[in-house]
Amino acid sequence: MNTTQFSLAELAKEVDGEITGNAELAIHAFSPLETAKDGDISFLVKAKDVGMLDSFTGSAVIVPMAIETASIPLIRVDNPYLASAKIHTLLLQKPFVAKGVHDQVCIGKDSDVPQQISIAPFVSIGNRVQLGERVSIESGVVLGDDVQIGDDCILKNNVSIADGCIIGNRVIIHPGAVIGSDGYGYATDKRGFHTKRPQVGSVHIGNDVEIGANACVDRATYGVTRILSGSKIDNLVQIAHNVVIGENNLIVSQVGIAGSVTLGRNVVLGGQAGVKDHITIGDGVMAAAQSGIHNNQKAGEIIGGSPAIPMKHFARAAIQFAKLPEMARNIRQLKREIAALQVLVTETNEDNGDKK
Amino acid sequence: MNTTQFSLAELAKEVDGEITGNAELAIHAFSPLETAKDGDISFLVKAKDVGMLDSFTGSAVIVPMAIETASIPLIRVDNPYLASAKIHTLLLQKPFVAKGVHDQVCIGKDSDVPQQISIAPFVSIGNRVQLGERVSIESGVVLGDDVQIGDDCILKNNVSIADGCIIGNRVIIHPGAVIGSDGYGYATDKRGFHTKRPQVGSVHIGNDVEIGANACVDRATYGVTRILSGSKIDNLVQIAHNVVIGENNLIVSQVGIAGSVTLGRNVVLGGQAGVKDHITIGDGVMAAAQSGIHNNQKAGEIIGGSPAIPMKHFARAAIQFAKLPEMARNIRQLKREIAALQVLVTETNEDNGDKK
Amino acid sequence: MNTTQFSLAELAKEVDGEITGNAELAIHAFSPLETAKDGDISFLVKAKDVGMLDSFTGSAVIVPMAIETASIPLIRVDNPYLASAKIHTLLLQKPFVAKGVHDQVCIGKDSDVPQQISIAPFVSIGNRVQLGERVSIESGVVLGDDVQIGDDCILKNNVSIADGCIIGNRVIIHPGAVIGSDGYGYATDKRGFHTKRPQVGSVHIGNDVEIGANACVDRATYGVTRILSGSKIDNLVQIAHNVVIGENNLIVSQVGIAGSVTLGRNVVLGGQAGVKDHITIGDGVMAAAQSGIHNNQKAGEIIGGSPAIPMKHFARAAIQFAKLPEMARNIRQLKREIAALQVLVTETNEDNGDKK
Repeated sequence: MNTTQFSLAELAKEVDGEITGNAELAIHAFSPLETAKDGDISFLVKAKDVGMLDSFTGSAVIVPMAIETASIPLIRVDNPYLASAKIHTLLLQKPFVAKGVHDQVCIGKDSDVPQQISIAPFVSIGNRVQLGERVSIESGVVLGDDVQIGDDCILKNNVSIADGCIIGNRVIIHPGAVIGSDGYGYATDKRGFHTKRPQVGSVHIGNDVEIGANACVDRATYGVTRILSGSKIDNLVQIAHNVVIGENNLIVSQVGIAGSVTLGRNVVLGGQAGVKDHITIGDGVMAAAQSGIHNNQKAGEIIGGSPAIPMKHFARAAIQFAKLPEMARNIRQLKREIAALQVLVTETNEDNGDKK
Repeated sequence: MNTTQFSLAELAKEVDGEITGNAELAIHAFSPLETAKDGDISFLVKAKDVGMLDSFTGSAVIVPMAIETASIPLIRVDNPYLASAKIHTLLLQKPFVAKGVHDQVCIGKDSDVPQQISIAPFVSIGNRVQLGERVSIESGVVLGDDVQIGDDCILKNNVSIADGCIIGNRVIIHPGAVIGSDGYGYATDKRGFHTKRPQVGSVHIGNDVEIGANACVDRATYGVTRILSGSKIDNLVQIAHNVVIGENNLIVSQVGIAGSVTLGRNVVLGGQAGVKDHITIGDGVMAAAQSGIHNNQKAGEIIGGSPAIPMKHFARAAIQFAKLPEMARNIRQLKREIAALQVLVTETNEDNGDKK
Repeated sequence: MNTTQFSLAELAKEVDGEITGNAELAIHAFSPLETAKDGDISFLVKAKDVGMLDSFTGSAVIVPMAIETASIPLIRVDNPYLASAKIHTLLLQKPFVAKGVHDQVCIGKDSDVPQQISIAPFVSIGNRVQLGERVSIESGVVLGDDVQIGDDCILKNNVSIADGCIIGNRVIIHPGAVIGSDGYGYATDKRGFHTKRPQVGSVHIGNDVEIGANACVDRATYGVTRILSGSKIDNLVQIAHNVVIGENNLIVSQVGIAGSVTLGRNVVLGGQAGVKDHITIGDGVMAAAQSGIHNNQKAGEIIGGSPAIPMKHFARAAIQFAKLPEMARNIRQLKREIAALQVLVTETNEDNGDKK
């Protein structure tokens, strides 16, 4: 049970909000609007939904600035969606409780395990591994030799991080994710036999990154595959060797990014999108789900389709795609009408010629 | 070696079949038609393939009703494909043998482990976990706190089920599947930095569900991500937060279902299909492989393409798609012909005008 | 630190190369051209880039035959990309050092563990398992009963190989991959309830195969799912029951291959491609990323699109796809022009008729 509590004033301060109502009101928990109880704070994203506050059963609501007053205490903010995430996080926050290292853990030589740490059973840690403060490592995690993990990281069940990979601070890696598997690189001889190219690079992951369940990040062939700070990678995403993912990207589930792709800052790739190898994607590019990105993209482009084109073109073309059979019929009909006209006009001209 | 045996009559009763031939015939095993041996029963799906029975080397065959007699014993049924699955299952059935809890298993506080259970080495079980009767838990499985598992479940190698998830009876979860990972939800500030929204909901899985290898089912942001009874999820499928999957769905490999999607009963999503967030898909909808479903779908729709449209339209449009270059040439040619006609008709009219 | 060293002559011999310069030069390591140090060998793929050798800071370069001389020692070969892979591999090669079986490993009855082996902690091995020489099994790996592993294999963290699967020599299986999970097969009754078909077949994997991280290979319903020698499967690939993958295939990340598909030799499937069940794909077929292959393909076909068509048709059609709105406008315009012409021609003819 969560026994933390904050005053409305403390919460408002956290999000630069303005209070309407009792600033000393005690808030214990966060709930959606529909299920809030006494002591709960909720949130409302759109001012037009203000009527939903009438049946509210909690204690306070985070609302957009446009809602100026209500019968219940409010925290008014520019972005209620963001403010509610911050306040919810604050209300859930607990001090790190170090559970220490379970008996059933194997740790290699010269590895550095701080006191403020929790390592669950059946975890295997290689040689010369460096672990930051307040790291939580769940069951079945395997860390290779020379791995470095920053402070306040959470490595969930069965995560695998191979030799030499470096992880920043406050990184969350979800169950089954694989960091530092070999890149997919072969050289083919005349008989069609593939020789594996050694994959001797590494993976570096910045701060505040999240890697989804069963996602894969391959090590570089040489050099480093990088995921820069603030980027969020969803489940089952494939990130190939030598990819560079810029800051604050959102890479949605099942996206595949081929080798040596470079993504700028704040790129958003929708679910199941694919990016061809050696492509550069500019800052702020947004690609629709299932896009197939074959070419470099300038900053700010919004694209869709496979091969991907500007989204507004894709949307219009997709509407026409459904009408292709009708279009084909129209063309056949036009052909017939033109042929008929050609006969008619030729006859007319011959008639005229006769008369001449 | 399987030493179970059933009489033809016992097997026929299991599937409401009619026997032709010796009802007391002993059947030991199930085999495909081509490789059946003495004591084996096989199946034939289509009556038109009746000639395949001539070279049959086993003991009996499950056939469609339309085959009325043969030189070998038959079980005649409405649906031989279904009947053969049931009979094969019956022939393989063995009583559950409890192997107990291996020495190398960690179990938290207040967890409830019945006697009729098999837990393999290196399994980690949290606090207050409830396990049903005759559950089999293979190596490397991790169950979080407060997990509930029903009767007769099989959790295969390295499956991960996070805190508070609830699993029904007779559920099979294949290796590496992840149940209850965090949903993918962030709120973005003006600088482009993403704040994680706490994911405090759960996952509930009904009875007779199967979850494929390395598939992922995210917990709800609030509330519950649900997979209702009888649904079968293939390998590497992504099911996002707050999704509701109705009863008896077939979700084929690598499908991705975005947040807050609701699927009805008996929906079929072909491999690699994707469903946009907050969509509702009616009962019995069938989507072709690689579909991209962007809109609500009424019950019974059969759809394909990305964005998905009715399958018959998609099939016709896809044929025309391949002819687009020809279509473009045709249009250019029509333009030229019309331009020529326009010249001709104008001249004719001028001629006529001259004569007037 | 790698202290192996080879003379330029020894390396050249390995790749049938011709030496320019000092054949006795000692080479210690392999590096990309840009970062080579003294003692390093690098490679240059294209003769036209010969200028890059001017600023080279290493000791020798593998170059194409067309480069005949340079100010630094060269190994001249037909295929520098291939030769460099072989030479890099040779320079990294170390004798297998058997670490033996860790204390925290569970091995079943009648399993055969040779002396030349490394088995990491928390590995679980079933009954009657056969392990080849110089096999390395990393943490969290689970091998079922009756599994056979050839010589010189590497099974990385948390790999799962189910009962009865057979793996050849020199196979590498990356973290989290699942071999031998149940095929996805159900028979549906009139009420829409799905009965699982028992999946009693196996998986056989040939020599020199590589299986990517979190990839899945399902066992056959009956019979065998096969991956023949030399094939390389990337991360997150799905290979369904009864698939046969020929020799030396390249199956790129996130590809999905449905049940009973047969691929020939040296097939290449681009990332996220999907193959419909029961299809046969001929030798040397190449499918673009995100292809959806619905039909049998003859040897040597190069295809793209979903449904897949010959690549050159797809490429042209995709260009026209983007122009569909323009095409629709053109057709509407042609209709109007033809209608106008029809009016004009009719009037002209009536005029002419009047005059007759």
